[in-house]
Amino acid sequence: MPVLVMKFGGTSVANLDRIKRVAKRIGVEVAKGYDVIVIVSAMSGKTNELVGWVNETSPLFDAREYDAVVSSGENVTAGLMALTLQEMDVPARSWQGWQVPVMTTSAHASARIEEIPTDNIMAKFGEGMRVAVVAGFQGISPEGRITTLGRGGSDTTAVAFAAAFGAERCDIYTDVDGVYTTDPRVSPKARKLDKISFEEMLELASLGAKVLQTRSVELAMRYKVKLRVLSSFEEQSDEAGTLVCDEEEIMESNVVAGVAFSRDEAKMTLLSVADRPGIASIIFGCLSEAGVNVDMIVQNISEEGRTDMTYSLPTDQVKRAEQALDELKSSGGLNFADLDVDMDVAKVSVVGIGMRSQSGVAAKMFKVLSDDGVNIRVITTSEIKISVLIDRKYLELAVQALHDAFELEKAA
Amino acid sequence: MPVLVMKFGGTSVANLDRIKRVAKRIGVEVAKGYDVIVIVSAMSGKTNELVGWVNETSPLFDAREYDAVVSSGENVTAGLMALTLQEMDVPARSWQGWQVPVMTTSAHASARIEEIPTDNIMAKFGEGMRVAVVAGFQGISPEGRITTLGRGGSDTTAVAFAAAFGAERCDIYTDVDGVYTTDPRVSPKARKLDKISFEEMLELASLGAKVLQTRSVELAMRYKVKLRVLSSFEEQSDEAGTLVCDEEEIMESNVVAGVAFSRDEAKMTLLSVADRPGIASIIFGCLSEAGVNVDMIVQNISEEGRTDMTYSLPTDQVKRAEQALDELKSSGGLNFADLDVDMDVAKVSVVGIGMRSQSGVAAKMFKVLSDDGVNIRVITTSEIKISVLIDRKYLELAVQALHDAFELEKAA
Repeated sequence: MPVLVMKFGGTSVANLDRIKRVAKRIGVEVAKGYDVIVIVSAMSGKTNELVGWVNETSPLFDAREYDAVVSSGENVTAGLMALTLQEMDVPARSWQGWQVPVMTTSAHASARIEEIPTDNIMAKFGEGMRVAVVAGFQGISPEGRITTLGRGGSDTTAVAFAAAFGAERCDIYTDVDGVYTTDPRVSPKARKLDKISFEEMLELASLGAKVLQTRSVELAMRYKVKLRVLSSFEEQSDEAGTLVCDEEEIMESNVVAGVAFSRDEAKMTLLSVADRPGIASIIFGCLSEAGVNVDMIVQNISEEGRTDMTYSLPTDQVKRAEQALDELKSSGGLNFADLDVDMDVAKVSVVGIGMRSQSGVAAKMFKVLSDDGVNIRVITTSEIKISVLIDRKYLELAVQALHDAFELEKAA
Repeated sequence: MPVLVMKFGGTSVANLDRIKRVAKRIGVEVAKGYDVIVIVSAMSGKTNELVGWVNETSPLFDAREYDAVVSSGENVTAGLMALTLQEMDVPARSWQGWQVPVMTTSAHASARIEEIPTDNIMAKFGEGMRVAVVAGFQGISPEGRITTLGRGGSDTTAVAFAAAFGAERCDIYTDVDGVYTTDPRVSPKARKLDKISFEEMLELASLGAKVLQTRSVELAMRYKVKLRVLSSFEEQSDEAGTLVCDEEEIMESNVVAGVAFSRDEAKMTLLSVADRPGIASIIFGCLSEAGVNVDMIVQNISEEGRTDMTYSLPTDQVKRAEQALDELKSSGGLNFADLDVDMDVAKVSVVGIGMRSQSGVAAKMFKVLSDDGVNIRVITTSEIKISVLIDRKYLELAVQALHDAFELEKAA
């Protein structure tokens, strides 16, 4: 029988009633003849509670223990979902990551899936089981410790299962009914997209549109997994939600597909570092080893052989970054005058594959922001996106102004 | 280095502050030179919450899924405890049941530990780790599914680890400061015992004194594990709490060591069953297969070849028992006129190894209850205990009267 992967986020399984509603939705697909692999998140709020406990216990925690604690929420949902399905007479059982096993790297708290053997689950499908409920977000390291895939990792779990099992489609059920031109809470004019290309979705995901985890989109693109984002709170037709697909499948599109933003950014500047070859690799190598995800990087013009190095990073990694750099400094690995941190910045980006063929998007973006008095701190660009770092207080203003300027409320 | 096992119940690890306090207590033992194996329960309330969800989802649940859900609470505590110890610079890591692995039978929700390989943990002790924090109450079946040991299973986990690792002692930290002659909440005259024999403790535990799980005491007796029950909320000396030990180590003792009781009992009567050989084995075989723990059994005198069969069982197993018997009846396996259930009974018992050599204890017990107008529904006796089933409303009265009559407030 064809395999369908369905993934449900935390708000979709927030309580027993919602789990029951989701189980009915699964039952509909089983009745259509699918063998279904269901990937579940923790009940909403649970993972945050667990992360909070870990942070309070140990601010610079052992990531192996973090993973052991934080993965437990998904296990609860998986068991409850299997029981709910059984109550509906749908043959189902739960799997925890290590039971499949979802084999990952040892990079705790942000592990990558290396392999998903299909034999265990396929054998059960062969015996008449119709739904395998898998705890998302988790796996097992070569050392036999529990790993997690990082925030939103359940999306990645879902796509990886869809790829491994050759699923017909991977449906990501969430609390929004699709991918929007921007966050509707920030701009009421935001419009739902029926289709979006993998490339655009990738930029939107990595830029903070929290609908899908970046890595899940990368994986879907690489393995050609048909990915659909839809709401678990609405009655569904086969055309509901947003289909993430190859750009060839999209006939018409705006130059700019969407305006993405990320609120929890910090800007860090290393003042007066030696401007010599290899200095960037020392700095960013050190930060990378400390698990810091540096994003936008700018280097000032050199004066008397010294320069300033500015970059952005998530606010919750600032402490870690400071510690790593202080250690590097005191061990003599790097000399700098001071470390300047601005916790009150945000990133805004416009994204669209149409930019490849149309020029002037950047100029228009900068003018729109300038007209509203928004000062741009850092700029980075790629083939299909332009990002700027601005003071956080201007974030909503900037998003709305850009959405208006590029007329995203209108379909192409 | 000598190994010490320390077990902490749910109230001892109810929040991060308490986990920190417990970690300090562990640190004291590490400083004394012990390699410590810590067995933790779920934070108090967590397991009940999970069990509640399972029951609400599926009243006659698949016990394999029950175990997958319910075991998650201990995993959280284990990770948090390891992190707390690391923060105190005590080298520690967490183990979930399947990681040790704690190998159990497949009897889900009430599995038995079959084997605990010591090599993984001993290797880590050899590398300088000082504390292995193990999630209690759980293990792994031969089929690779998660199992749990039943309520209070963390005590059993602790004793099994103490036996497997040849620990010097197994300290069970709980919210009471030892074993009492009865529950102090019911009788204010209850007195803490400094020592109690394994046999007496076994009867007290199985009769509902919730200090230690029955099986943990059985195991301790079989493997001669020195077992100590003490409070995690008080400063501890080496003589704190109650030592559970061989009766040879106890010099003087009262005829009756304690009055135990169990509130959540139900009485079930099968009316008019055929009085023929094998009928009891059919009834109780059926109930046993359904996972019902029948306790006290009485059979009425036969009339015209039919008899009534009465027995007690925990109230939460009544539904299960009814279903099993109805199925047996409709399949023609057993004929009976009716099934009578009384949910409002309680069990009260007096326990003491002194009863072996002194007669008249039963007569005295019945007289005390009769004097207070307490009607006795069912009686069972063993070498060192006498139990009666009474209407639940008389429970407190009966316990206090018996405690007074046997002068348990006075040490021997």
